[in-house]
Amino acid sequence: MNQFTSREAEVDVMNFLNEISYRYPEAISFASGRPTDKHFNIQRWLESAAKFIEHFSVKQGISYQRAEQLISQYGKTNGVVNELIAEQVRKDQGINCCDKDIIITNGCQEAMALCLLSLCREPDDVLLVCNPTYIGITGLADVLDIEVCSVDYHHEAQLLQTLGVKIEALIADKKRPRAFYLMPDFDNPSGLQLSLQARQQILELCSKYDVAILEDNPYGLFQYNGEPKPALYQLDESGCVIYLGTYAKTLCPAIRIGYLILPPHFLGDVQRQQALSDKLSSLKSYLSVNTSQITQAILGGVLLDNQCSVESLVVQPRKTYLDNRDTLVAALERFFADYRDQVSWNIPAGGFFLKLTLPFKFNSQDVAQCAQHHQVICMPMSYFAQDNQFDNCVRLAFSNLDRDQIVLGVERLSRYIIEKLAAQKLRIDRQERA
Amino acid sequence: MNQFTSREAEVDVMNFLNEISYRYPEAISFASGRPTDKHFNIQRWLESAAKFIEHFSVKQGISYQRAEQLISQYGKTNGVVNELIAEQVRKDQGINCCDKDIIITNGCQEAMALCLLSLCREPDDVLLVCNPTYIGITGLADVLDIEVCSVDYHHEAQLLQTLGVKIEALIADKKRPRAFYLMPDFDNPSGLQLSLQARQQILELCSKYDVAILEDNPYGLFQYNGEPKPALYQLDESGCVIYLGTYAKTLCPAIRIGYLILPPHFLGDVQRQQALSDKLSSLKSYLSVNTSQITQAILGGVLLDNQCSVESLVVQPRKTYLDNRDTLVAALERFFADYRDQVSWNIPAGGFFLKLTLPFKFNSQDVAQCAQHHQVICMPMSYFAQDNQFDNCVRLAFSNLDRDQIVLGVERLSRYIIEKLAAQKLRIDRQERA
Repeated sequence: MNQFTSREAEVDVMNFLNEISYRYPEAISFASGRPTDKHFNIQRWLESAAKFIEHFSVKQGISYQRAEQLISQYGKTNGVVNELIAEQVRKDQGINCCDKDIIITNGCQEAMALCLLSLCREPDDVLLVCNPTYIGITGLADVLDIEVCSVDYHHEAQLLQTLGVKIEALIADKKRPRAFYLMPDFDNPSGLQLSLQARQQILELCSKYDVAILEDNPYGLFQYNGEPKPALYQLDESGCVIYLGTYAKTLCPAIRIGYLILPPHFLGDVQRQQALSDKLSSLKSYLSVNTSQITQAILGGVLLDNQCSVESLVVQPRKTYLDNRDTLVAALERFFADYRDQVSWNIPAGGFFLKLTLPFKFNSQDVAQCAQHHQVICMPMSYFAQDNQFDNCVRLAFSNLDRDQIVLGVERLSRYIIEKLAAQKLRIDRQERA
Repeated sequence: MNQFTSREAEVDVMNFLNEISYRYPEAISFASGRPTDKHFNIQRWLESAAKFIEHFSVKQGISYQRAEQLISQYGKTNGVVNELIAEQVRKDQGINCCDKDIIITNGCQEAMALCLLSLCREPDDVLLVCNPTYIGITGLADVLDIEVCSVDYHHEAQLLQTLGVKIEALIADKKRPRAFYLMPDFDNPSGLQLSLQARQQILELCSKYDVAILEDNPYGLFQYNGEPKPALYQLDESGCVIYLGTYAKTLCPAIRIGYLILPPHFLGDVQRQQALSDKLSSLKSYLSVNTSQITQAILGGVLLDNQCSVESLVVQPRKTYLDNRDTLVAALERFFADYRDQVSWNIPAGGFFLKLTLPFKFNSQDVAQCAQHHQVICMPMSYFAQDNQFDNCVRLAFSNLDRDQIVLGVERLSRYIIEKLAAQKLRIDRQERA
């Protein structure tokens, strides 16, 4: 377990993302992976709801007024825009699925909650995650008292080597590894993307041991270099992948619409799929009855306005992110020019995050110092880790900043880091002299 | 435990409410407690969002455009319209609370989930509920593996007698009764309202044993006869009441906004309140990050348009419900005129539900028969019960029907019931002759 399993720490870490900007309003923040809000058009999106209501009235053979009334009511537990979502993932991501296999949720976070509550209910059930991984999955497992087993993920070869070993060790220990949560594309926090071969090997392994894969893909449409890789869901022949999606990054976070897509045959079994589908639907009804049909109508209208593709919505943001990534990398090269032997970073091929590696531990005290004295905020990678292997790393989110902020933010951060390096050197020099 | 704790039954019962209308579209349904949709104005409500964005921009001292961007993003875990909700409950319900003690949720159902996950986490923790009670609370406890202890509630004297006995028996059995869920006003399913004296006695008892009260109040603003009673939250001096509210009935279900209000000193302790508040907030972030700021902006705009009162929104629906209740009672009197010694009902002073009592058990087979052969749907009270005490009762929801439907529905239902009574009489006569 990491240092963030106590109540206090959970609150600190999770609220950190949303609330630190209120504490240091002047600081430049590399902390939160918010999408850029430059291209949001909430006014037009609100107006789009009428388009979906019209579509719904035609489909149901009822008047527009009656459709408005029904959309304003409670609705089907699994959602009302499932067909449009099925069409969107087919067009934009090549994912073929049936609308009845989709459950629409209050953001992807609720989809994760449904999956964990369905799959990991016995004391011996274990959730596998990457180390490091998204805080929302480990925090959720913690509040639901689900045992977590982490698989080191500095790079994919390590992940592939370790995954099978961990699964077998769990089974030998009479545990049941039930699900493996991962983000194959531009992982939060590491920015890594899995190769096609790695995807196939993970599928083989999980299929062999009946481990469900929770494939979380918020960043798949934000690829800057190279060919897009097929989703695990597309490659899956054994029915072990549950695909998790969201419109938080492609439309906007405030829509709070996520979804899960079940495989047609869960672990190769149609009846098992139906049982899981019923269980998930029942859980959804007990957690939140159903997802707002107002936000579903807004999403539905936007999808209808865009021929069931979000491509036209993400084309500008994608350019912004690519430009931001390049600006960030150039700024790192500039401000750490004399420290390339001590400070390093990856160049992510997509997504919102870059990993900076330092020659010293970077923790909450460093965050506070940076925010207070240098007006810059970033996230220690240790917040996402299950042990101390990533204590020297920092996650830099570059998605919701402009160029000038990125350059200035890196300058400020470099000042803090270089000061600390100098102090460290001085200490070492003194120790050597002593 | 009742017959509806298995997976299949959970799905059946909970989906029954939302989905049976799809199966028998021509049937008149007394099953679902949906609010009337005659007065919904979704188009105007969508437009109201701009009013809240304007309000938010002024409050934050930022441009309208910047406010739009921030509202479209992720937001504070506990919500962004808390002050307006605090003002609304003060104006409409005389509830004084601080906006920082409010957590805004995905419908009231999520507020319940947060409370149960916070208060009942140890194996010995027990949730007290009335028998019968709202399916959503017992179903939730079931999926979270929380032990439920039910307190019979045919009438309030019985509830008061039994509550203390049950709490003491649990404590003697080394269990920890942590929370008592109840609906003091126009209970779903029974339609009962607690007297002021009963409220005070429940508060005393729960306070004495440190049992939190989850006061669910969806129907408090729909009172047709008599003086409104103060909420337990208002009467509470010991800090044991967590108030649960919703805009599903006052605005519309599709808004999916509920909330919980913590007492200023939880069980008399400010620090304990802060700890619970942090825990609830952390859980909220792991279940759904935050409630949609789009639906919050719509609600906020509607509240601003109505001087932070929902009174103008509920005045017409309240008239509709009163008229429906009177129509229902008159129809029952008419169609069961010759069976008053065998068929009885209460006359609820508010809310959406009436309890019909029959001289035979009414179960799922009867529901199916009524729907298929008589084109009328209603809910067996046994669905809401923890044992077989209510097998002879039926819940009739009268909130989302018009007068003609109510009269025709009762006629159809009476035909089924009278036929069954006749068959029963024939059987008895034969037995007597045999």
